[in-house]
Amino acid sequence: MSKENSIGKTDKKYYSFAAPPNELVLESGEKLGPVKIAYETYGQLNKDKSNAILVEHAFSGDAHAAGYHEGDDKPGWWDDLIGPDKALDTKKYFIICSNIIGGCKGSTGPSSINPVTGKPYALDFPIVTVADMVKVQKYLIDHLGIKKLLSVIGGSMGGMQVLQWVASYPESVLSAIPIATTLKHSPQQIAFDEVGRQAVIADPAWLNGNYYDFGQPERGLAVARMIGHITYMSDRSMEEKFSRKLKEKSKNLKFTSDFEVEGYLKYRGDTFVKRFDANSYLYITKAMDYFDLSGDKLIPRKKKPGIRFLVIAFKSDWLYPAYQAQEIVKLLKARNVNTTYCEIDSTYGHDAFLVEIEKESHLIKHFLRSVSGENGEEYEYSI
Amino acid sequence: MSKENSIGKTDKKYYSFAAPPNELVLESGEKLGPVKIAYETYGQLNKDKSNAILVEHAFSGDAHAAGYHEGDDKPGWWDDLIGPDKALDTKKYFIICSNIIGGCKGSTGPSSINPVTGKPYALDFPIVTVADMVKVQKYLIDHLGIKKLLSVIGGSMGGMQVLQWVASYPESVLSAIPIATTLKHSPQQIAFDEVGRQAVIADPAWLNGNYYDFGQPERGLAVARMIGHITYMSDRSMEEKFSRKLKEKSKNLKFTSDFEVEGYLKYRGDTFVKRFDANSYLYITKAMDYFDLSGDKLIPRKKKPGIRFLVIAFKSDWLYPAYQAQEIVKLLKARNVNTTYCEIDSTYGHDAFLVEIEKESHLIKHFLRSVSGENGEEYEYSI
Repeated sequence: MSKENSIGKTDKKYYSFAAPPNELVLESGEKLGPVKIAYETYGQLNKDKSNAILVEHAFSGDAHAAGYHEGDDKPGWWDDLIGPDKALDTKKYFIICSNIIGGCKGSTGPSSINPVTGKPYALDFPIVTVADMVKVQKYLIDHLGIKKLLSVIGGSMGGMQVLQWVASYPESVLSAIPIATTLKHSPQQIAFDEVGRQAVIADPAWLNGNYYDFGQPERGLAVARMIGHITYMSDRSMEEKFSRKLKEKSKNLKFTSDFEVEGYLKYRGDTFVKRFDANSYLYITKAMDYFDLSGDKLIPRKKKPGIRFLVIAFKSDWLYPAYQAQEIVKLLKARNVNTTYCEIDSTYGHDAFLVEIEKESHLIKHFLRSVSGENGEEYEYSI
Repeated sequence: MSKENSIGKTDKKYYSFAAPPNELVLESGEKLGPVKIAYETYGQLNKDKSNAILVEHAFSGDAHAAGYHEGDDKPGWWDDLIGPDKALDTKKYFIICSNIIGGCKGSTGPSSINPVTGKPYALDFPIVTVADMVKVQKYLIDHLGIKKLLSVIGGSMGGMQVLQWVASYPESVLSAIPIATTLKHSPQQIAFDEVGRQAVIADPAWLNGNYYDFGQPERGLAVARMIGHITYMSDRSMEEKFSRKLKEKSKNLKFTSDFEVEGYLKYRGDTFVKRFDANSYLYITKAMDYFDLSGDKLIPRKKKPGIRFLVIAFKSDWLYPAYQAQEIVKLLKARNVNTTYCEIDSTYGHDAFLVEIEKESHLIKHFLRSVSGENGEEYEYSI
């Protein structure tokens, strides 16, 4: 979409809290403080503060979900979904997106300065969980004076946070839109994360996490990211994008990239190390692997929260396969939660949640209208 | 199966040829010599030399396909399939298995001594292709006095060599059994190989391939192997084997393995570096990625070789998905080649070709009987 439909210039804001001796108590029992949270908001909060939607970012995302930062030509990561007249319509809704704790895009994480030592936390940073990420967001929402969110929405790890909001603060959420996500990682998902971590840890430049004075463990982190990118695409989308096309290359060099797909992965790996902290990579993937809201943990038995769900999955997503979304839906239906499920026909694999904007917009727009009471009757979705 | 049904004690043999100035000319035009080939044989070659079956090993396999080496309790890698009264019945057939060129299990490869320098070849070893692997096997078969193989059989990269035999020496093969394989790697398969290679190359201990005096690039190679093992199993077989079970561990250590699946991958990576050469890893994965017998390359148009095919795939194999086997079958049917296709229902993923012995045995046994003219009529397979 063009820049004209954009929310325009946006700014990163910060909220700090939990200064010692009132540190934040994490799920592990460890304490952390002060905590700084980077966030952005789009649109206007209405008088009764009932139009707020929290957007949750995925693994390597950040608070910059929409609009443009000064001097930057690249819009936020979900700009096609957030803006005037878009699915998350900034004329109607007040959109909030914050960077997760443990991250490296403005919120407190392993690369932040530990006030006790005056140096980056590195591995002294406590283990954080998805519940901790959401707990910190609750502080932010309270700070903004919002009692109840109209909706929480996000894909991939963003979807885990959506589910965690329902588990942790069921009274503070009117509706939830988890996309391309799961109640818990399968061993295969854990395995992919673990290989990425091992690639980082195997890099001698990692220095047991204390690399901040010397530069990132770039090679290991790049390999980790390359693995990630394979899992984000489908076999078919790779075929459509690269086929077996060869790159131009010097014939004399062995084991340089021959195929276009190799060059693409290398490029993705190399750019990632410039923007993402290796220790954050370890902490956040661990948080995903520990995440588990199966059984009674999402919604306690005999309790039916007044929450409505729109659950979205993508047919070619093999990293978070549709059967995992169906498990969420089964669990919700068993608790009599008002749930709509849609499996979008896409060839983009896991990336689809960032790409299939038109199909997602259609679903989200109508779902939010219905949640806000704008629709006269229930809307049935089919794609 | 028990040791009693085994072929018993076996020995590795060697065949050397192509001594300078009569070096082997490789597909690239480069020359290599002398070439040494490690191989094993089981059973007896009959008088008219018509009962020979060539077994092709997969990526990290070797010539030791069956029986036991002196002092070793572990049988060869396909011992359940090869032996008296087994599918590859050593009472009837003469079985040959050789280590591929470029490998590190006795045949000439990058870790072999370069006669020109007196040091290991390292990256001075020429690029070898699957066609080169098969060409070397043809030398061995000629050396053994065999004009025509009763069958060529193998899974994964072994299956590529099977197809290559048909392409390179159609007159020397009576039947072919490619299992869990493809006419060419998809971009996704190339991508997984490339990430493995990058993990090796990223390890500073790789030293541009010149690590032989200092020890293997163990960390990078272990990460590469971990990636491989994820692709060899299915989502479901991992779920059945590990679920989300936790390992016992020291609570104080961050980023050690928590989940059993992590420990398994770590173990697999760590044992691999003790038995496999890192440069061989690079050369052999490249050979797989370059392999391409699509179009007219397997069987030239207007030419129908008198070869019979049994093509086997496994339903849960997502590394070499069944659609790739079906592409082989389509191509063969279009050339009017007598072809039987079977998709075995298995949850083991790509590993299935090493695990689903009973189902494979059933198919292979009857197919070979039919090829040898032992069956009165055509046998139709269904599982």
